[in-house]
Amino acid sequence: MWDVAEDLNAMLVFAEHRYYGESLPFGNESFSDSKHLNYLTSEQALADFAVLVEYLKTTIAGAKHSPVIAIGGSYGGMLAAWFRMKYPHVVVGALAASAPIWQFGDLVPCGTFFSIVTNDFKKSGKGCSESIRNSWNAINHLSSTDAGLQWLSNTFHLCSPLKTPQDASVLKNWLSETWVNLAMVNYPYKADFLQPLPAWPIQEVCKFLKDPSLSDKLLLQNVFQAVNLYYNYTGEASCLDVSQTATKSLGEMGWYYQACTEMVMPLCTDGVHDMFEPQKWDFDALSEECYRMWGVRPRLSWILSMYGGKNISSHSNIIFSNGGLDPWSAGGVTQNITDSLVAVVIPDGAHHLDLRSRSPLDPKSVQQARAMEICLMKEWIEKARHSH
Amino acid sequence: MWDVAEDLNAMLVFAEHRYYGESLPFGNESFSDSKHLNYLTSEQALADFAVLVEYLKTTIAGAKHSPVIAIGGSYGGMLAAWFRMKYPHVVVGALAASAPIWQFGDLVPCGTFFSIVTNDFKKSGKGCSESIRNSWNAINHLSSTDAGLQWLSNTFHLCSPLKTPQDASVLKNWLSETWVNLAMVNYPYKADFLQPLPAWPIQEVCKFLKDPSLSDKLLLQNVFQAVNLYYNYTGEASCLDVSQTATKSLGEMGWYYQACTEMVMPLCTDGVHDMFEPQKWDFDALSEECYRMWGVRPRLSWILSMYGGKNISSHSNIIFSNGGLDPWSAGGVTQNITDSLVAVVIPDGAHHLDLRSRSPLDPKSVQQARAMEICLMKEWIEKARHSH
Repeated sequence: MWDVAEDLNAMLVFAEHRYYGESLPFGNESFSDSKHLNYLTSEQALADFAVLVEYLKTTIAGAKHSPVIAIGGSYGGMLAAWFRMKYPHVVVGALAASAPIWQFGDLVPCGTFFSIVTNDFKKSGKGCSESIRNSWNAINHLSSTDAGLQWLSNTFHLCSPLKTPQDASVLKNWLSETWVNLAMVNYPYKADFLQPLPAWPIQEVCKFLKDPSLSDKLLLQNVFQAVNLYYNYTGEASCLDVSQTATKSLGEMGWYYQACTEMVMPLCTDGVHDMFEPQKWDFDALSEECYRMWGVRPRLSWILSMYGGKNISSHSNIIFSNGGLDPWSAGGVTQNITDSLVAVVIPDGAHHLDLRSRSPLDPKSVQQARAMEICLMKEWIEKARHSH
Repeated sequence: MWDVAEDLNAMLVFAEHRYYGESLPFGNESFSDSKHLNYLTSEQALADFAVLVEYLKTTIAGAKHSPVIAIGGSYGGMLAAWFRMKYPHVVVGALAASAPIWQFGDLVPCGTFFSIVTNDFKKSGKGCSESIRNSWNAINHLSSTDAGLQWLSNTFHLCSPLKTPQDASVLKNWLSETWVNLAMVNYPYKADFLQPLPAWPIQEVCKFLKDPSLSDKLLLQNVFQAVNLYYNYTGEASCLDVSQTATKSLGEMGWYYQACTEMVMPLCTDGVHDMFEPQKWDFDALSEECYRMWGVRPRLSWILSMYGGKNISSHSNIIFSNGGLDPWSAGGVTQNITDSLVAVVIPDGAHHLDLRSRSPLDPKSVQQARAMEICLMKEWIEKARHSH
């Protein structure tokens, strides 16, 4: 965005989503209960953006007639697409990068997400995905005894030791999330999105995971080496915290609440097409957990009712870009819907790689994607200027 | 709608708007305070309709793939248009009859509305609009004395007598609203929309208002005859109630609240281009009144932010029909915006005449309008069936 804004002589505006960062409508009480959280919805966020754009247009000299384009990645990409759908009078188009707008209801199979993660590991080193697939049983074996739990806690350098076999689930979930996150940030150069990491981090991680046939303890020592690369690439971590998989600044709290209300994304694993322990999509369990945590229940199909699911062909001027390495592409739009609802696929791209700054290490595919995106954005701007 | 549904083999569904009729989310407490009224918004109503349509499609045999068209008149017409704009995945098109979607902000002059009312009276009888224009001063003169107030109360057969000069404003507002309502229901045949009335009721009313140069008392006796036709065409009213201008079933309470939050429609008179006492549009007075009544303040430009004002060309498949006799056409779309945002003007039509049942007394212009509307609706249905 920084590079392209310069070319287009554009102003970049980063709108902070309500309930994230410093945009807390009730200050410290914003997350205190469901009453205070009631205003945390994607619809309200979009309305904020509409009012913000209008405010900027009327207060910034020269901005009044400037066409505006919504740009976002991930949830921000969904918001960008939905913003164009719901407020086409405010933005002339949207670039929705790695936006899984179809990861809802039964629009896509729930297992594709994790099979993409698995493919990333499979392609990044011999024995890699098999090592991870075998690690779950190794943990299950060891966590059945106190000595094994102790060994796991020591081996993984955990900040708080595992105490019960149930704690082993926490460890496994944390490991799963780590593999998912690595798939999301599998960028072609050193980067620092969720964590500081080397180029192609899955390849680095897989260097520790070459032999899936090792004994439980040797296998898990290698798994530790692998995750330690993710959590401790800088060497600054004195222990690993299984309650944390990314930097705190992403605002997990807000997202967890949204996942408990609107953002219900069915995901599942079968251990066959993916390297994870089999786990069915369990809406009822989610619903119970949400009720326990926030006193709310998720609405399974609300996002479809609100934003149209796959029936969106009457909209226009949205680019959906997706990375082939990115598990979120499972719920993304990867084929053109109409002439002006365009899919851009970046086979070598991870999560919204196209939105990152230009790099000499960028694969050709992301360079081409950006060129296409810029071309379409210029068209929208041109058309808007003419119609004005 | 009844006639056309038959032709198209369609199901008619009348969705009741929340907070109107029996659709009271908090029962008797729904209007008790702003906390309970907080869910009365057009956005929430549209979301209700989306969920309703989906529910009907999944529960009614054979309905699953039926294309749906939103139809409404007046506020319902605005909702129909906005429904297509915001939920194009739910309805293939909308017929927005007499929908003043531009009677907001500064999109149209605030005085046009009342000048259309005035024209209706001017065209319906010699001396008619002048008699009404002269009546205000007559009331002002008489209401300055107790005897005059008594005379006014008796002459207008008021249920509760006027007591102070301020009460004269209530009388004048009530008369103004009566003239406006007559303009809205100036239908070519006997009808019973706001009140039971004869064909072309303004012509009937104007038969009493031929001489604008009469003395105050004689003029006002004629004005009484005129409004008595509106309120007492059946002869059943024993007195006239200045707190009431239409049947109660319209749900005035809900509308008053909405007019105090989202539905802020600037209106004004100058006494020159219209037959009313000059009154500037006074947002601050409205705001104070709204705060006093409901504890809320209106948001002047929210409807524009939400629904796009005049910048709606990216939408499709909406018919905006307007009657030339209807004051609400002042804020309506009376010229095509694009090939699929189509304006239909009915010069001899009052408020959403086109939505009424066919009548042998229908003017040619409404017959043509309906033919055009049916043609376009068939096109939408055809296209939807093909794309499915």
